Amino acid sequence: MTVALPSWVADIALPTSHGDDDVMRYVIDLARANVEHGTGGPFACAIVSDAGEILGVGVNLVEQERCCVFHAEVVAIINASEHMQSWDLSAEHGATLYTSAEPCAMCMGAIPWSGVHRVVIAARDEDVRVIGFDEGAKPSDWISVYQRRGISVRRDVLREESIAVLREYATRGGLLYNA
Amino acid sequence: MTVALPSWVADIALPTSHGDDDVMRYVIDLARANVEHGTGGPFACAIVSDAGEILGVGVNLVEQERCCVFHAEVVAIINASEHMQSWDLSAEHGATLYTSAEPCAMCMGAIPWSGVHRVVIAARDEDVRVIGFDEGAKPSDWISVYQRRGISVRRDVLREESIAVLREYATRGGLLYNA
Repeated sequence: MTVALPSWVADIALPTSHGDDDVMRYVIDLARANVEHGTGGPFACAIVSDAGEILGVGVNLVEQERCCVFHAEVVAIINASEHMQSWDLSAEHGATLYTSAEPCAMCMGAIPWSGVHRVVIAARDEDVRVIGFDEGAKPSDWISVYQRRGISVRRDVLREESIAVLREYATRGGLLYNA
Repeated sequence: MTVALPSWVADIALPTSHGDDDVMRYVIDLARANVEHGTGGPFACAIVSDAGEILGVGVNLVEQERCCVFHAEVVAIINASEHMQSWDLSAEHGATLYTSAEPCAMCMGAIPWSGVHRVVIAARDEDVRVIGFDEGAKPSDWISVYQRRGISVRRDVLREESIAVLREYATRGGLLYNA
C-alpha cells in the first residue's frame, strides 16, 4: 500500500549525496514545502538505504488524509515498505531514517518495527512542543533503548533549519491537530 | 484512505450489543479468524462510538501488507478515520477502542492521537511477550499517563479467550515479524 504524496513532492530537488547533511536538507525542504503548500504539518521524513537509495519519503498528512497516524515517519515507512515489498526495511541493505523532528511517542514505537538501524534527527522534542504540538509519553531513556536494540541515533543535524520551519508553521497559524 | 480487510471479515457475526464483553467477543473472533485463515498475527481491534456504532475494525496485516505499521489498532484507526472523515474519532460521540491484546509501544503512542476516550483490553502485555512478540519500550506508568489525558483503561476483558488465540498462533508456528 502507498500513501499518496502531494504532487509538489516531485518538484523538490533530490539530495546530491547520501551524506547526513545533504539528505536532511532535502527532508527539511519537504517539510518547508508542506507548510508553504498548506498540505500538512511542518514535518518530513526520508528513509535511505546504506547503498544510497531513497526507499521512501513522507510528509505529515494528518489534515489532508483526515487521519491521526499519518505522521511523516509513518508515511515514509509505509511507502518504503511498498517499495521494498517487505516489512523489514533493512532486508537488503541497512537503512537510515531521517526525520525533520524528534519522533512522537507513536513514531518512536514504530521505528524499531521497521528494521532501520540508524535514525538522524534535526529538531528536538522541545522544539516541537514549544510551538504547541503534543509529542506524547516516551520513555525518558528512549535513545538508550534504541541503542540497546542496535539502532544508533544522531541528533541536531540542521536543527536550526528545522526550527525555522516549525516557527513558520506557528506564524501562519497552522492547525495543531492533536485530538 | 482505507486498509483493505480480508474478505472473511464480513462473515464474522457482529456483536449483539455494545457491552464490553459482546464487543470483545467479536474482536477475539476476528483475531482467531485471522490466525485460522493465515492472514496475519493473532490480534484484532474495533472502535465503537458511545452511540454503539462500529466506526472501524482492524486485524493485524503486517505480513499480508508487508508493512510493519499495520498492527490491528493502526488499521482500525485508519479505517475509522475514513468512515468518520476526521482525525478525531470522538468528533461526534466519544469512542472506545477494543483491542484483543495490550498495545505495543507504537499503538500505545497512536491511540491518544485518535481521540478515543476509553480503551478496553483482553490479553496483557506479558501474554503477548510469552509467545515471542516484542512489545517495545513503553513508559511503565502508561495507564496513569492515559488517565491524566482523560483516557480510561479497562483490562482483562475475556483475557483467557484472547490468550487461547495467542497460543493457537504459537502452536501453528506463526511468523514473529518484528524486524
